[in-house]
Amino acid sequence: MGYPDTFEGFAVESADKWTEPKYREYKPRPFEERDVDIEVQACGVCGSDVHTVTSGWGECPYPLVVGHEIVGIVKRVGDKCETGLKVGQRVGVGAQAWACLSCRQCKADNEVYCPQMRDTYGAKYPDGSITQGGYASHVRVHEYFVFPIPDVLETTAVAPMLCAGATAFSPLYRNGCGPGKRVGIVGIGGIGHFGLLFAKALGAEVFAISRSDKKKEDAFKLGADGFIATEKKGWNEEYSMTFDLIVNCANSSENFDLAAYMSLLDVNGRFINVGLPEGDGFKIEPFKMIGNGAVFGFSHIASRPEILKMLDIAAEKGVKSWVETLPVGEKGCGEALKRCHDNDVRYRFTLTDYDKAFPKK
Amino acid sequence: MGYPDTFEGFAVESADKWTEPKYREYKPRPFEERDVDIEVQACGVCGSDVHTVTSGWGECPYPLVVGHEIVGIVKRVGDKCETGLKVGQRVGVGAQAWACLSCRQCKADNEVYCPQMRDTYGAKYPDGSITQGGYASHVRVHEYFVFPIPDVLETTAVAPMLCAGATAFSPLYRNGCGPGKRVGIVGIGGIGHFGLLFAKALGAEVFAISRSDKKKEDAFKLGADGFIATEKKGWNEEYSMTFDLIVNCANSSENFDLAAYMSLLDVNGRFINVGLPEGDGFKIEPFKMIGNGAVFGFSHIASRPEILKMLDIAAEKGVKSWVETLPVGEKGCGEALKRCHDNDVRYRFTLTDYDKAFPKK
Repeated sequence: MGYPDTFEGFAVESADKWTEPKYREYKPRPFEERDVDIEVQACGVCGSDVHTVTSGWGECPYPLVVGHEIVGIVKRVGDKCETGLKVGQRVGVGAQAWACLSCRQCKADNEVYCPQMRDTYGAKYPDGSITQGGYASHVRVHEYFVFPIPDVLETTAVAPMLCAGATAFSPLYRNGCGPGKRVGIVGIGGIGHFGLLFAKALGAEVFAISRSDKKKEDAFKLGADGFIATEKKGWNEEYSMTFDLIVNCANSSENFDLAAYMSLLDVNGRFINVGLPEGDGFKIEPFKMIGNGAVFGFSHIASRPEILKMLDIAAEKGVKSWVETLPVGEKGCGEALKRCHDNDVRYRFTLTDYDKAFPKK
Repeated sequence: MGYPDTFEGFAVESADKWTEPKYREYKPRPFEERDVDIEVQACGVCGSDVHTVTSGWGECPYPLVVGHEIVGIVKRVGDKCETGLKVGQRVGVGAQAWACLSCRQCKADNEVYCPQMRDTYGAKYPDGSITQGGYASHVRVHEYFVFPIPDVLETTAVAPMLCAGATAFSPLYRNGCGPGKRVGIVGIGGIGHFGLLFAKALGAEVFAISRSDKKKEDAFKLGADGFIATEKKGWNEEYSMTFDLIVNCANSSENFDLAAYMSLLDVNGRFINVGLPEGDGFKIEPFKMIGNGAVFGFSHIASRPEILKMLDIAAEKGVKSWVETLPVGEKGCGEALKRCHDNDVRYRFTLTDYDKAFPKK
C-alpha cells in the first residue's frame, strides 16, 4: 500500500512513551471536494506537539501523528477548490485544518475562533476519523488552510512560521504593532524569537523580556532594541507605563508576577498571551491592575489573511527563522519532542529528509 | 470660625465606628492659584466611601470626611484659573482632585492614570494635609477637576453621576459602545444602573446581567433590552460569543465564574471591570479564555473630557439617575454609609439639606 490509499507517519502510542514515536501506516479520511493532499517535505516541531503527546493538555487520541508546521508539495486538488492551488505547488499548513466557513466568526476572518474549528492533528472528523499531522508522508487538509509559500522563503526556515510564526504575528498585527510603538516579547523561545523578528519587521521598537541574561546576545541578533532580565529585583520599575503592547510567549505561568508585567504598559495597553501553560493559570489582583487601565487576554494562532500577510512580510523583509534540523523518523521525532520539552533548541526544530524516511511515497 | 478659614464636615474617626461620622471643623490646605472653593449643595454616597472608612481598601487616614460625588456653587476662583469658572456657577467634582497635568498620561487626556494623581479624599498634599470630601460645607479642588453642570440636570440626580456615572460611562465610551453593539452590564447597583442608562443613551443594545430576577423589572425601566440571571445553570450558553463589551460593575469577586462571563464575548470582545472588590481577585484559566481572544481589564473613573461628554449626553438624552435622598448630618451620613454597605438602596443615595446642616456657612 501507499499513497493515495494509505499515508505513513510516526505516531506516539501512549503518554508514557511520548519520546518513542513509531512508524505506522494509516488510512486517510475520504477525500472531499475542497480537500488538498500534500506530500510533506518538512515539518516544524511545536510545543503543542509535546503538550499533546504527553496528554498534558488532556487525553490524547493515541496513536497520534503530530506536527502542524508543515511544508510540502500539492499532490491532488479537490474539484470544488476555489483558492487556485495547483498540483506541484509548494504550500504550507499550520495548526488548523478545518472550520465551517459560514458562521459569523468565519465570515469576519476569525475562522480560528469558529466554534467548530478542527486542529490539524487530534481532532475528530464527522466520519469518526482523527486528524493526523505532519510527521508523515502526506496530509489531507481543506484548501482554506493551505497557504502558498513565496519562492524566496526556504522550506526548512518557513515551516515553523506556519504555527509559531503565525502565533506571534497575529497578536502583533491585530494590536497595532508598528512604527512609534514599543512592544515587549516575553519568553524568547520558539514563538518568542518570531515575536522579536516580526515586531521588528513591522517597524516597532521591540524589547526582549527574559528571565536571565542568557539569551541577551541572541535577542539583539534577532532584532531587539532592548533587553530586560526579570530575575533582577525591581526590574520593572525603570520601564513603568512605557509599553504599548506585550506579547507573552512564555510557556509557564508558575511564579509569574503578572502585576509586574502589567505595570510596564501604558494606559490601555495590552498584554496578550499566546502560550497555553499547563497548570492553574494566572491570578489577577484588581488593585494592581487599575493604575493603567491595561487589558489582559489571549490570542490563538492566526487567521488565513494573517498567515498570508505574515508570509508576504517575511518574504519582503527577509525575516529568517533560527532553526535546527533533524531527520524525520522514529529517532529524529523522538529526539525533537524530548529536546523541545527540555527547551534545548535555539529556537525551533524542523524535521527534514522526508524522502529518506518515506521512500515508497 | 467658618468659611473661608475653616470648613465643616462629618468625619469617620475609626474603622470600628464607620457608621458614626462626627461633626468637625477643619482647616483647609492653603488656597493655590488654580484652586476653586465650592459650597456643597449635595453629595452622592459611593461604595468607595464605605471601602475607605472601613479601611477595607487599606488603612484610612482618620478622621476623614469622605464623599466624591459633589455638586455645589463656586465661591472663589484662583487667579490663574483657565477653564472659565465663575463665582456663583453650579459645578460638580468627582473622585479625583489633582494631577500633574504635565506628564505623558495627563497630556493624553489620561490624567486619571497620572502617577501623581490625588483622590478627592484621603490623599496627601505636599504640605502634609489630607484631602477631604463632600460630606462637608465646602471643598477646595484644582479647577481642572471642577465641571460645569448643564442647567437641565437636577442637583440631586446629577451628583452621583460625578463618580458612579463617570465610572460606568468611561469604559463604555472608550470601548466603542454605540449603535450596532451589544453591551452587557454586570451588577445592577449604583454604578451598574448608570451602565444601563448610559449604554442605552449611547445607542447600544444593552443587557442587564444580574444574579437573580429580583431587579429585572427595574432593569427594563432603566432601558435594558434584555436581562440575564446568572443563578440559572447554563445561563451563559444561549448568549455564547454575542457580546461586544461587558462592563462589570459588581462589587464582589467571590465565587465569580469569570470564564462563564468571558464566554459571552465575541472575538476580541472586552470585559472591563470598574469595581474594586476587596479580597483575592480573579483567577484566569488560559484554556477557558482562548475560545474568543477576548480581553479582561480594569477602568478607573473617567477623564475630564469624558466627564464633560457624559454630562452633555445626560442633558441631551434626558438621562435620569435613580436616587434616594438623605439629609447630610451625623445621622444621615451614618445611615447612608450603612445602607450603601448593605446594598439597601435603589440605586444611589444623595445627601441633601446642606443649608440646615451648616447654617453658619
